[in-house]
Amino acid sequence: MRFTFDQKILFKHCDPAGIVFYPRYFEIINDCIEAFFAHIGTPFERLHQTAAVPTAEITTRFTAPSHHGDELTLSLEATRLGRTSLGLHIEAHAGAERRLDCASTLVHVGLDGRPAPWPAPLRTALTPYLRSPE
Amino acid sequence: MRFTFDQKILFKHCDPAGIVFYPRYFEIINDCIEAFFAHIGTPFERLHQTAAVPTAEITTRFTAPSHHGDELTLSLEATRLGRTSLGLHIEAHAGAERRLDCASTLVHVGLDGRPAPWPAPLRTALTPYLRSPE
Amino acid sequence: MRFTFDQKILFKHCDPAGIVFYPRYFEIINDCIEAFFAHIGTPFERLHQTAAVPTAEITTRFTAPSHHGDELTLSLEATRLGRTSLGLHIEAHAGAERRLDCASTLVHVGLDGRPAPWPAPLRTALTPYLRSPE
Amino acid sequence: MRFTFDQKILFKHCDPAGIVFYPRYFEIINDCIEAFFAHIGTPFERLHQTAAVPTAEITTRFTAPSHHGDELTLSLEATRLGRTSLGLHIEAHAGAERRLDCASTLVHVGLDGRPAPWPAPLRTALTPYLRSPE
Repeated sequence: MRFTFDQKILFKHCDPAGIVFYPRYFEIINDCIEAFFAHIGTPFERLHQTAAVPTAEITTRFTAPSHHGDELTLSLEATRLGRTSLGLHIEAHAGAERRLDCASTLVHVGLDGRPAPWPAPLRTALTPYLRSPE
Repeated sequence: MRFTFDQKILFKHCDPAGIVFYPRYFEIINDCIEAFFAHIGTPFERLHQTAAVPTAEITTRFTAPSHHGDELTLSLEATRLGRTSLGLHIEAHAGAERRLDCASTLVHVGLDGRPAPWPAPLRTALTPYLRSPE
Repeated sequence: MRFTFDQKILFKHCDPAGIVFYPRYFEIINDCIEAFFAHIGTPFERLHQTAAVPTAEITTRFTAPSHHGDELTLSLEATRLGRTSLGLHIEAHAGAERRLDCASTLVHVGLDGRPAPWPAPLRTALTPYLRSPE
Repeated sequence: MRFTFDQKILFKHCDPAGIVFYPRYFEIINDCIEAFFAHIGTPFERLHQTAAVPTAEITTRFTAPSHHGDELTLSLEATRLGRTSLGLHIEAHAGAERRLDCASTLVHVGLDGRPAPWPAPLRTALTPYLRSPE
């Protein structure tokens, strides 16, 4: 199962070269992940009351530039669900053209900043999005 | 040779968990690269009159969190100088603790968005920063 | 007539104090204005091919803090439609509570940066949103 | 007495029209205020352990556009020092040309979000920056 997230490229995303300034892509990617967690029943505003999900590692390839007004669709799936970590793969397309793909690893940490096991209900909610279920 | 760039972690960089929100790190990384190009005599505001240097790929590991007030030092070196591309390696430390390391590839493109050879003076200016000179 | 725009407060908007960092409000306000222009048939990505609409002045009162997860509704109306300028009034509420109100003045400029009369179709499209029509 | 703060206009500040995107100006203004508090001995990272200084109101006029590479100098003075509030006036110039002026009101609040009197040492440190000392 994949989660999809639409984002039109807005004025604020674009640089003097007229294309998306890549740090803004990471805000978009973060918005997608936040929307995904809300979608599966654990909105970030609730999760962050007792935990956090910092990004430990992220690799992104920008395969074609995006311009102001482009309608992007991001598509997210989980690639690995560890005891305290989550691997994600995200792609963004405008129509048939891929604009980026991204692999990231999040870690579920407690308020002390230490890795903490995913709560069972969240683990259950994440599982259907695993590329090949465990 | 390495280029170093100091950045105190400011209020604007931090998230509700009290640590740097990682898209802000990419702004800091971009500022470091912009300062590097200015340092070697090709400030971005001049380079962008006839070209651009979009990021094609970037991999970042966040090895320890950074908090508001931390004094970071970024250290940059070139890992590869292609005909139209540039590989960079950037690390950020607060004191002895590494906070992130990052490998990115920039591409020098013309105003038409197509890869264009690095101008000779810029290539010359970049060369001393290559990890092992060509 | 009023234009309304919904924006959930996301992780990226919030500061270490757990409330919206006010520069992010200005991104939200800009997104609202961009959505308004798209709604009346002149999306920014088309308008910016031949013109721009820089903000000349903006006054904002933050009347109550917004927290992560709050569902904001922005409501926009025009207060003045000059030959080359546009006065806007925007309020943001979460439920019944007002979070901010904002008065701004945009100027329609040509690619040379000089004030230029609003195109007639855009003037016509803006008019219904004037608080008291001219 | 005035506090001054230098900021070169960087790639990240600029929009597709090639000038500063105004929400970025508010980040610059916030950076200036943060540097000011550090300068007078109360860095934000320490102040925010027991308090916060949200902006209650801000009025800004953008009197001329700023372009990539412009060297801005912001100049800050206090206009009013209330029991729990602080009025500030900030101007930004590039050389002799004023780019913006801004009046804002900050409120000193406790961790409960309620206005709290300025600590005496901070009040003493702020006083020399009052336009006409109390």
